[in-house]
Amino acid sequence: MKVIMDLCVVPMGVGVSVSSYVAACERILKEAGLKTQLHAYGTNIEGEWDAVLAAVKKCHETVHAMGAPRVSSIIKLGTRTDRDQTMEDKIRSVQAKLG
Amino acid sequence: MKVIMDLCVVPMGVGVSVSSYVAACERILKEAGLKTQLHAYGTNIEGEWDAVLAAVKKCHETVHAMGAPRVSSIIKLGTRTDRDQTMEDKIRSVQAKLG
Amino acid sequence: MKVIMDLCVVPMGVGVSVSSYVAACERILKEAGLKTQLHAYGTNIEGEWDAVLAAVKKCHETVHAMGAPRVSSIIKLGTRTDRDQTMEDKIRSVQAKLG
Amino acid sequence: MKVIMDLCVVPMGVGVSVSSYVAACERILKEAGLKTQLHAYGTNIEGEWDAVLAAVKKCHETVHAMGAPRVSSIIKLGTRTDRDQTMEDKIRSVQAKLG
Repeated sequence: MKVIMDLCVVPMGVGVSVSSYVAACERILKEAGLKTQLHAYGTNIEGEWDAVLAAVKKCHETVHAMGAPRVSSIIKLGTRTDRDQTMEDKIRSVQAKLG
Repeated sequence: MKVIMDLCVVPMGVGVSVSSYVAACERILKEAGLKTQLHAYGTNIEGEWDAVLAAVKKCHETVHAMGAPRVSSIIKLGTRTDRDQTMEDKIRSVQAKLG
Repeated sequence: MKVIMDLCVVPMGVGVSVSSYVAACERILKEAGLKTQLHAYGTNIEGEWDAVLAAVKKCHETVHAMGAPRVSSIIKLGTRTDRDQTMEDKIRSVQAKLG
Repeated sequence: MKVIMDLCVVPMGVGVSVSSYVAACERILKEAGLKTQLHAYGTNIEGEWDAVLAAVKKCHETVHAMGAPRVSSIIKLGTRTDRDQTMEDKIRSVQAKLG
Protein backbone atom coordinates (compact mmCIF):
# COMPACT_ATOMS: atom_id res chain seq x y z
CA MET A 1 0.00 0.00 0.00
CA LYS A 2 1.53 3.28 -1.14
CA VAL A 3 1.21 6.34 1.04
CA ILE A 4 1.67 10.07 0.67
CA MET A 5 2.47 11.56 4.06
CA ASP A 6 3.02 14.98 5.50
CA LEU A 7 5.28 14.76 8.55
CA CYS A 8 6.04 17.47 11.08
CA VAL A 9 8.26 16.36 13.97
CA VAL A 10 8.17 18.65 17.03
CA PRO A 11 10.92 18.06 19.62
CA MET A 12 9.89 19.39 23.06
CA GLY A 13 12.09 20.37 25.95
CA VAL A 14 15.01 21.48 23.77
CA GLY A 15 14.37 25.18 23.28
CA VAL A 16 12.91 27.09 20.35
CA SER A 17 15.41 26.15 17.66
CA VAL A 18 14.54 22.75 16.28
CA SER A 19 16.16 22.85 12.82
CA SER A 20 18.98 20.43 13.72
CA TYR A 21 16.40 17.83 14.75
CA VAL A 22 14.40 18.38 11.58
CA ALA A 23 17.60 18.06 9.53
CA ALA A 24 18.38 14.73 11.25
CA CYS A 25 14.92 13.50 10.23
CA GLU A 26 15.49 14.64 6.63
CA ARG A 27 18.66 12.54 6.56
CA ILE A 28 16.79 9.50 7.89
CA LEU A 29 14.11 9.85 5.22
CA LYS A 30 16.71 10.21 2.45
CA GLU A 31 18.74 7.23 3.70
CA ALA A 32 15.53 5.19 3.65
CA GLY A 33 15.32 5.93 -0.06
CA LEU A 34 12.03 7.78 0.26
CA LYS A 35 10.95 10.59 -2.03
CA THR A 36 10.66 13.75 0.08
CA GLN A 37 9.94 17.45 -0.29
CA LEU A 38 10.66 19.79 2.60
CA HIS A 39 8.29 22.73 3.10
CA ALA A 40 7.92 25.45 5.71
CA TYR A 41 5.77 23.38 8.09
CA GLY A 42 6.80 19.79 7.50
CA THR A 43 7.96 17.34 4.86
CA ASN A 44 5.98 15.55 2.16
CA ILE A 45 6.96 11.89 1.84
CA GLU A 46 6.02 9.28 -0.73
CA GLY A 47 6.66 5.56 -0.45
CA GLU A 48 5.41 2.19 0.67
CA TRP A 49 3.52 2.20 3.99
CA ASP A 50 5.98 0.03 5.92
CA ALA A 51 9.07 1.89 4.69
CA VAL A 52 7.57 5.31 5.44
CA LEU A 53 6.30 4.36 8.89
CA ALA A 54 9.60 2.66 9.80
CA ALA A 55 11.36 5.93 8.93
CA VAL A 56 8.98 7.90 11.16
CA LYS A 57 9.80 5.56 14.05
CA LYS A 58 13.51 6.05 13.41
CA CYS A 59 12.96 9.84 13.47
CA HIS A 60 11.42 9.62 16.96
CA GLU A 61 14.20 7.34 18.20
CA THR A 62 16.87 9.63 16.75
CA VAL A 63 15.40 12.88 18.06
CA HIS A 64 15.18 11.30 21.53
CA ALA A 65 18.81 10.12 21.19
CA MET A 66 19.80 13.70 20.28
CA GLY A 67 18.46 14.82 23.65
CA ALA A 68 14.78 15.64 23.27
CA PRO A 69 12.86 14.08 26.18
CA ARG A 70 9.56 14.51 24.39
CA VAL A 71 8.64 14.34 20.70
CA SER A 72 5.24 15.08 19.17
CA SER A 73 4.69 14.41 15.48
CA ILE A 74 1.82 15.70 13.40
CA ILE A 75 1.09 13.45 10.47
CA LYS A 76 -1.29 13.53 7.53
CA LEU A 77 -1.35 10.19 5.81
CA GLY A 78 -3.18 9.44 2.58
CA THR A 79 -3.81 6.18 0.76
CA ARG A 80 -5.97 5.51 -2.27
CA THR A 81 -7.07 2.42 -4.13
CA ASP A 82 -8.76 4.04 -7.14
CA ARG A 83 -5.54 5.08 -8.86
CA ASP A 84 -1.85 5.63 -8.48
CA GLN A 85 -0.94 9.19 -7.56
CA THR A 86 2.38 10.89 -6.87
CA MET A 87 3.10 14.03 -4.86
CA GLU A 88 3.66 15.88 -8.16
CA ASP A 89 0.29 14.67 -9.47
CA LYS A 90 -1.44 16.20 -6.47
CA ILE A 91 0.17 19.59 -7.03
CA ARG A 92 -0.36 19.49 -10.80
CA SER A 93 -4.06 18.68 -10.50
CA VAL A 94 -4.58 21.82 -8.39
CA GLN A 95 -2.41 23.97 -10.66
CA ALA A 96 -4.33 22.75 -13.72
CA LYS A 97 -7.53 24.10 -12.13
CA LEU A 98 -5.83 27.42 -11.44
CA GLY A 99 -5.06 27.78 -15.12
CA MET B 1 8.72 2.69 22.75
CA LYS B 2 5.31 3.64 24.11
CA VAL B 3 3.16 6.08 22.21
CA ILE B 4 0.10 8.18 22.89
CA MET B 5 -1.68 8.87 19.62
CA ASP B 6 -4.65 10.86 18.46
CA LEU B 7 -6.11 9.28 15.32
CA CYS B 8 -8.75 10.74 13.01
CA VAL B 9 -9.51 8.62 9.95
CA VAL B 10 -11.28 10.47 7.12
CA PRO B 11 -12.77 8.26 4.37
CA MET B 12 -13.22 10.20 1.11
CA GLY B 13 -15.54 9.46 -1.76
CA VAL B 14 -18.22 7.83 0.40
CA GLY B 15 -20.55 10.72 1.23
CA VAL B 16 -20.85 12.80 4.38
CA SER B 17 -21.71 10.07 6.88
CA VAL B 18 -18.55 8.36 7.99
CA SER B 19 -19.57 6.92 11.37
CA SER B 20 -19.68 3.30 10.15
CA TYR B 21 -16.06 3.60 8.99
CA VAL B 22 -15.01 5.18 12.27
CA ALA B 23 -16.83 2.39 14.16
CA ALA B 24 -14.93 -0.24 12.13
CA CYS B 25 -11.67 1.43 13.16
CA GLU B 26 -12.76 1.43 16.81
CA ARG B 27 -13.30 -2.31 16.57
CA ILE B 28 -9.84 -2.83 15.07
CA LEU B 29 -8.21 -0.82 17.86
CA LYS B 30 -10.10 -2.77 20.55
CA GLU B 31 -9.29 -6.13 18.96
CA ALA B 32 -5.63 -5.10 18.95
CA GLY B 33 -5.90 -4.79 22.73
CA LEU B 34 -5.09 -1.08 22.69
CA LYS B 35 -6.37 1.38 25.25
CA THR B 36 -8.61 3.88 23.46
CA GLN B 37 -10.88 6.82 24.17
CA LEU B 38 -13.22 8.09 21.47
CA HIS B 39 -13.84 11.85 21.34
CA ALA B 40 -15.72 14.15 19.00
CA TYR B 41 -12.85 14.60 16.52
CA GLY B 42 -10.83 11.40 16.76
CA THR B 43 -9.67 8.68 19.12
CA ASN B 44 -6.92 8.72 21.72
CA ILE B 45 -4.84 5.54 21.66
CA GLU B 46 -2.18 4.30 24.04
CA GLY B 47 0.17 1.39 23.42
CA GLU B 48 3.46 0.17 22.05
CA TRP B 49 4.59 1.88 18.82
CA ASP B 50 4.48 -1.22 16.60
CA ALA B 51 1.08 -2.39 17.87
CA VAL B 52 -0.49 1.06 17.49
CA LEU B 53 0.93 1.68 14.02
CA ALA B 54 -0.05 -1.82 12.84
CA ALA B 55 -3.62 -1.05 13.93
CA VAL B 56 -3.58 2.22 11.97
CA LYS B 57 -2.51 0.32 8.85
CA LYS B 58 -5.32 -2.17 9.38
CA CYS B 59 -7.77 0.75 9.69
CA HIS B 60 -6.73 2.07 6.27
CA GLU B 61 -6.94 -1.40 4.70
CA THR B 62 -10.36 -2.01 6.25
CA VAL B 63 -11.85 1.35 5.30
CA HIS B 64 -10.67 0.78 1.71
CA ALA B 65 -12.18 -2.73 1.80
CA MET B 66 -15.48 -1.18 2.99
CA GLY B 67 -15.56 0.85 -0.23
CA ALA B 68 -13.70 4.11 0.39
CA PRO B 69 -11.37 4.76 -2.57
CA ARG B 70 -9.41 7.34 -0.62
CA VAL B 71 -8.53 7.58 3.06
CA SER B 72 -6.76 10.46 4.77
CA SER B 73 -5.74 10.12 8.41
CA ILE B 74 -4.71 12.92 10.70
CA ILE B 75 -2.43 11.72 13.46
CA LYS B 76 -0.77 13.29 16.48
CA LEU B 77 1.82 10.97 17.91
CA GLY B 78 3.71 11.54 21.12
CA THR B 79 6.64 9.69 22.68
CA ARG B 80 8.70 10.59 25.73
CA THR B 81 11.80 9.19 27.36
CA ASP B 82 11.83 11.25 30.56
CA ARG B 83 9.00 9.39 32.25
CA ASP B 84 6.10 7.04 31.74
CA GLN B 85 2.80 8.79 31.13
CA THR B 86 -0.71 7.52 30.45
CA MET B 87 -3.60 9.26 28.69
CA GLU B 88 -5.23 9.77 32.11
CA ASP B 89 -2.03 11.34 33.45
CA LYS B 90 -2.12 13.92 30.67
CA ILE B 91 -5.71 14.92 31.45
CA ARG B 92 -5.13 14.90 35.22
CA SER B 93 -2.06 17.14 35.00
CA VAL B 94 -4.14 19.80 33.21
CA GLN B 95 -7.10 19.41 35.59
CA ALA B 96 -4.78 19.76 38.58
CA LYS B 97 -3.72 23.16 37.25
CA LEU B 98 -7.35 24.15 36.80
CA GLY B 99 -7.97 23.47 40.47
CA MET C 1 -21.34 29.31 10.78
CA LYS C 2 -21.01 26.77 13.57
CA VAL C 3 -17.77 24.90 13.99
CA ILE C 4 -16.56 21.82 15.84
CA MET C 5 -12.84 22.15 16.48
CA ASP C 6 -10.11 20.05 17.96
CA LEU C 7 -7.38 22.27 19.38
CA CYS C 8 -3.93 21.23 20.59
CA VAL C 9 -1.71 24.13 21.67
CA VAL C 10 2.02 23.29 21.85
CA PRO C 11 4.21 25.85 23.66
CA MET C 12 7.85 25.57 22.56
CA GLY C 13 10.96 26.69 24.39
CA VAL C 14 9.48 26.17 27.87
CA GLY C 15 10.53 22.64 28.73
CA VAL C 16 8.60 19.39 28.64
CA SER C 17 5.82 20.22 31.09
CA VAL C 18 3.15 22.19 29.30
CA SER C 19 0.08 21.50 31.46
CA SER C 20 -0.03 24.99 32.99
CA TYR C 21 -0.21 26.49 29.48
CA VAL C 22 -2.93 24.06 28.45
CA ALA C 23 -4.85 24.89 31.65
CA ALA C 24 -4.64 28.61 30.82
CA CYS C 25 -6.14 27.87 27.40
CA GLU C 26 -8.93 25.83 29.02
CA ARG C 27 -9.79 28.86 31.14
CA ILE C 28 -9.88 31.13 28.09
CA LEU C 29 -12.23 28.76 26.27
CA LYS C 30 -14.56 28.50 29.28
CA GLU C 31 -14.59 32.27 29.81
CA ALA C 32 -15.54 32.66 26.16
CA GLY C 33 -18.64 30.59 26.93
CA LEU C 34 -17.65 27.82 24.53
CA LYS C 35 -18.60 24.19 24.98
CA THR C 36 -15.39 22.19 25.50
CA GLN C 37 -14.22 18.69 26.26
CA LEU C 38 -10.61 18.07 27.24
CA HIS C 39 -9.00 14.84 26.05
CA ALA C 40 -5.52 13.35 26.23
CA TYR C 41 -4.24 15.07 23.06
CA GLY C 42 -6.24 18.29 22.80
CA THR C 43 -9.62 19.85 23.44
CA ASN C 44 -12.86 19.55 21.49
CA ILE C 45 -14.62 22.90 21.12
CA GLU C 46 -18.07 23.75 19.79
CA GLY C 47 -19.33 27.22 18.96
CA GLU C 48 -19.72 29.95 16.39
CA TRP C 49 -16.72 30.37 14.04
CA ASP C 50 -15.80 33.91 15.13
CA ALA C 51 -16.06 33.16 18.86
CA VAL C 52 -14.03 29.96 18.60
CA LEU C 53 -11.30 31.50 16.45
CA ALA C 54 -11.09 34.58 18.67
CA ALA C 55 -10.51 32.27 21.63
CA VAL C 56 -7.72 30.46 19.77
CA LYS C 57 -6.03 33.82 19.12
CA LYS C 58 -6.32 34.68 22.80
CA CYS C 59 -4.73 31.31 23.66
CA HIS C 60 -1.67 32.13 21.54
CA GLU C 61 -1.40 35.63 23.01
CA THR C 62 -1.73 34.29 26.55
CA VAL C 63 0.77 31.45 26.15
CA HIS C 64 3.27 33.94 24.73
CA ALA C 65 2.57 36.30 27.67
CA MET C 66 3.21 33.37 30.06
CA GLY C 67 6.72 33.12 28.60
CA ALA C 68 6.62 30.78 25.61
CA PRO C 69 8.59 32.36 22.75
CA ARG C 70 7.05 30.00 20.24
CA VAL C 71 3.59 28.43 20.02
CA SER C 72 2.44 25.87 17.48
CA SER C 73 -1.21 24.84 17.41
CA ILE C 74 -2.63 21.84 15.66
CA ILE C 75 -6.25 22.33 14.71
CA LYS C 76 -8.94 20.23 13.12
CA LEU C 77 -11.90 22.36 12.17
CA GLY C 78 -15.18 21.06 10.84
CA THR C 79 -18.21 22.87 9.41
CA ARG C 80 -21.28 21.42 7.76
CA THR C 81 -24.29 22.87 6.00
CA ASP C 82 -26.41 19.73 5.61
CA ARG C 83 -27.48 19.55 9.23
CA ASP C 84 -26.80 20.75 12.73
CA GLN C 85 -24.50 18.47 14.70
CA THR C 86 -23.08 18.66 18.21
CA MET C 87 -19.94 17.06 19.64
CA GLU C 88 -22.17 14.55 21.45
CA ASP C 89 -23.96 13.71 18.19
CA LYS C 90 -20.63 12.81 16.59
CA ILE C 91 -19.71 10.44 19.40
CA ARG C 92 -23.21 8.93 19.60
CA SER C 93 -23.35 8.19 15.87
CA VAL C 94 -20.16 6.12 16.15
CA GLN C 95 -21.29 4.39 19.34
CA ALA C 96 -24.63 3.49 17.72
CA LYS C 97 -22.71 1.64 15.00
CA LEU C 98 -20.68 -0.18 17.64
CA GLY C 99 -23.90 -1.49 19.19
CA MET D 1 0.70 38.94 15.46
CA LYS D 2 2.26 37.26 12.44
CA VAL D 3 1.47 33.64 11.72
CA ILE D 4 2.90 30.87 9.57
CA MET D 5 0.15 28.37 8.81
CA ASP D 6 -0.16 25.08 7.05
CA LEU D 7 -3.69 24.65 5.72
CA CYS D 8 -5.27 21.50 4.28
CA VAL D 9 -8.95 21.85 3.37
CA VAL D 10 -10.82 18.55 2.97
CA PRO D 11 -14.26 18.76 1.32
CA MET D 12 -16.44 15.78 2.24
CA GLY D 13 -19.42 14.37 0.40
CA VAL D 14 -18.18 15.43 -3.05
CA GLY D 15 -16.28 12.38 -4.25
CA VAL D 16 -12.57 11.65 -4.38
CA SER D 17 -11.43 14.49 -6.64
CA VAL D 18 -11.06 17.63 -4.58
CA SER D 19 -8.58 19.66 -6.67
CA SER D 20 -11.18 22.19 -7.87
CA TYR D 21 -12.02 23.00 -4.24
CA VAL D 22 -8.36 23.32 -3.33
CA ALA D 23 -7.83 25.59 -6.34
CA ALA D 24 -10.71 27.81 -5.21
CA CYS D 25 -9.02 28.14 -1.81
CA GLU D 26 -5.70 29.02 -3.49
CA ARG D 27 -7.47 31.85 -5.31
CA ILE D 28 -8.98 33.14 -2.06
CA LEU D 29 -5.58 33.16 -0.37
CA LYS D 30 -3.95 34.99 -3.29
CA GLU D 31 -6.76 37.56 -3.49
CA ALA D 32 -6.27 38.19 0.23
CA GLY D 33 -2.70 39.20 -0.60
CA LEU D 34 -1.19 36.42 1.50
CA LYS D 35 2.13 34.77 0.76
CA THR D 36 1.45 31.12 -0.05
CA GLN D 37 3.25 27.98 -1.16
CA LEU D 38 1.26 24.99 -2.34
CA HIS D 39 2.65 21.54 -1.51
CA ALA D 40 1.42 17.97 -1.96
CA TYR D 41 -0.59 17.88 1.30
CA GLY D 42 -1.64 21.47 1.92
CA THR D 43 -0.56 25.07 1.55
CA ASN D 44 1.89 27.12 3.59
CA ILE D 45 0.60 30.61 4.33
CA GLU D 46 2.31 33.61 5.87
CA GLY D 47 0.59 36.78 7.05
CA GLU D 48 -1.08 38.64 9.87
CA TRP D 49 -3.29 36.48 12.14
CA ASP D 50 -6.59 38.24 11.32
CA ALA D 51 -6.00 38.28 7.55
CA VAL D 52 -4.96 34.62 7.45
CA LEU D 53 -7.84 33.41 9.61
CA ALA D 54 -10.36 35.50 7.67
CA ALA D 55 -9.15 33.79 4.50
CA VAL D 56 -9.58 30.36 6.08
CA LYS D 57 -13.18 31.25 6.96
CA LYS D 58 -13.79 32.38 3.38
CA CYS D 59 -12.36 29.04 2.17
CA HIS D 60 -14.92 27.12 4.23
CA GLU D 61 -17.77 29.37 3.05
CA THR D 62 -16.69 29.04 -0.57
CA VAL D 63 -16.22 25.26 -0.52
CA HIS D 64 -19.69 24.91 1.01
CA ALA D 65 -21.09 27.25 -1.66
CA MET D 66 -19.45 25.05 -4.34
CA GLY D 67 -21.54 22.14 -3.05
CA ALA D 68 -19.61 20.41 -0.29
CA PRO D 69 -21.99 19.73 2.63
CA ARG D 70 -19.11 19.09 4.98
CA VAL D 71 -15.63 20.61 5.20
CA SER D 72 -12.85 19.55 7.55
CA SER D 73 -9.65 21.58 7.66
CA ILE D 74 -6.39 20.50 9.20
CA ILE D 75 -4.32 23.45 10.32
CA LYS D 76 -0.88 23.91 11.84
CA LEU D 77 -0.46 27.44 13.08
CA GLY D 78 2.74 28.90 14.43
CA THR D 79 3.47 32.22 16.13
CA ARG D 80 6.66 33.40 17.76
CA THR D 81 7.65 36.45 19.77
CA ASP D 82 11.41 35.91 19.97
CA ARG D 83 12.13 36.91 16.39
CA ASP D 84 10.65 37.52 12.98
CA GLN D 85 10.73 34.46 10.74
CA THR D 86 9.50 33.85 7.21
CA MET D 87 8.54 30.59 5.52
CA GLU D 88 11.84 30.74 3.59
CA ASP D 89 13.77 31.22 6.83
CA LYS D 90 12.28 28.00 8.21
CA ILE D 91 13.33 26.00 5.15
CA ARG D 92 16.77 27.63 4.97
CA SER D 93 17.56 26.90 8.62
CA VAL D 94 16.96 23.20 8.03
CA GLN D 95 18.89 23.17 4.74
CA ALA D 96 21.85 24.91 6.42
CA LYS D 97 22.03 22.02 8.89
CA LEU D 98 21.93 19.54 6.01
CA GLY D 99 25.00 21.19 4.53
